[in-house]
Amino acid sequence: MNITVIGLGLIGGSMAIDLKKRNFANKIFGVDNNKKHAETAIKMKIADEITDLDTGIKNADIIITATPLDACLKLLPEILDKINEQTVIDVCSAKHAVCNSVKSHPKRKYFVASHPMAGTEHSGPQAAVSHLFDGKTTFLCNTEKNTKKAVETAKKIYKTLNMKLIKTDDISHDIHAAFVSHISHISSFALALTVLEKEKDEKHIFNMAGGGFKSTVRLAKSSSDMWTPVLEQNAANIIEVINTYTEKLQEFKHAISEKNRNKINSLILEANKIKRII
Amino acid sequence: MNITVIGLGLIGGSMAIDLKKRNFANKIFGVDNNKKHAETAIKMKIADEITDLDTGIKNADIIITATPLDACLKLLPEILDKINEQTVIDVCSAKHAVCNSVKSHPKRKYFVASHPMAGTEHSGPQAAVSHLFDGKTTFLCNTEKNTKKAVETAKKIYKTLNMKLIKTDDISHDIHAAFVSHISHISSFALALTVLEKEKDEKHIFNMAGGGFKSTVRLAKSSSDMWTPVLEQNAANIIEVINTYTEKLQEFKHAISEKNRNKINSLILEANKIKRII
Repeated sequence: MNITVIGLGLIGGSMAIDLKKRNFANKIFGVDNNKKHAETAIKMKIADEITDLDTGIKNADIIITATPLDACLKLLPEILDKINEQTVIDVCSAKHAVCNSVKSHPKRKYFVASHPMAGTEHSGPQAAVSHLFDGKTTFLCNTEKNTKKAVETAKKIYKTLNMKLIKTDDISHDIHAAFVSHISHISSFALALTVLEKEKDEKHIFNMAGGGFKSTVRLAKSSSDMWTPVLEQNAANIIEVINTYTEKLQEFKHAISEKNRNKINSLILEANKIKRII
Repeated sequence: MNITVIGLGLIGGSMAIDLKKRNFANKIFGVDNNKKHAETAIKMKIADEITDLDTGIKNADIIITATPLDACLKLLPEILDKINEQTVIDVCSAKHAVCNSVKSHPKRKYFVASHPMAGTEHSGPQAAVSHLFDGKTTFLCNTEKNTKKAVETAKKIYKTLNMKLIKTDDISHDIHAAFVSHISHISSFALALTVLEKEKDEKHIFNMAGGGFKSTVRLAKSSSDMWTPVLEQNAANIIEVINTYTEKLQEFKHAISEKNRNKINSLILEANKIKRII
């Protein structure tokens, strides 16, 4: 099986590494408009060969688009124009915009909309690692629009990556992603901005940066290339979550400013119920 | 050296373990008004013997109070009433209230106000572990009020725990702690509440809980017994931070609702500067 990966970053690179290593792919063709990334991917043996888009499509049995969301929205119709009957899979973390971009395309049925829920705060091919996806979950969206073969191909890929599979639709996916993934990033970005602003006056503030702060602010290191279009495209859901999140912060603020010990305590005990989940 | 640890939880227990193991303490006396915690501490060999408060004070060369902040505020004057010239050390994460509680006490000079910046989201003696403090930082506050011997004793303890030491005052400490530690906890608590509320309607939302969410929400599991009095006692600083944090969230919200790609991008790039620090 020949696989072309478009976008040789954290996600595309990590997929390529394990699909090759686990003998699902015979050959990985890489497409990347960032020359340095392409060179790094060859050096790291993430890709066997770098090609242009047309050659990559022609050579592949399966095409994985692993670019940031905005690039994917432009590329995907073009890729579908050019394929025969190969399976095309994307990995973007907002799905409605992606599905919408090809909803009337005559080759829509060959495109599987997926979202492997894995990653780190790092980016680029140098961030790609083996085992990134093991034990994690992939969402497959709107598979009723796909050929049986396309869905089976996507399933085989994600099984090779040792992932659990959940089928859903693009709308539900995006609501859930806003609440569980996208808001985590925004809360971390805002925390970083808050502390960096204070640092202007208080130079030694980071002597205090312990494990708790590091864990909460970790995602603030995430790539703006990746996250800007996701926040833009999933705006309606994300704004709803920011509103709820701000309400919860205000509940804390009021309880604290009134020194209402019972209220602070009950808010924390309620939050502790997250132990059920993680 | 005999050490009495009052409050055999995560912090007190972890201190006891390494002070004994590293031969700084010959004997650890434990005081805890939670009988189960006391029993667990004996079983886990965190303490050699459980005593009442008066015996614990009488037996000890050094007394460490590692209770939640509200209990410490009540206990500390009583302990100072009862000591001769032993060193007393607290570990609370808000320092002004603690220092204030004994500011006019005739034995104030024997009390060292400290804050070892280490911990996990777990609590109780069963959460106590060796090496918790290795490589982390402890703040010593207002040491100009102490006898030389008391400060030297505190330093030896934290050196034994392999910690870096920073001297500061209670007011600066509490501002910095609000910005780097306390807000991290509030942002996590609020995130947990946001997602738990949404879960009432969307049962499958937690299928999406990936590594990013887990990292950001980890602190939401923290003990309300410990955190309620800290948020109450450091209220003024914490409210200032919540206000700044809410402003940053609103900047994101406005940029996203206007689909202002340049603004979203520049906010994320600004937040990325946290890489300098962690």
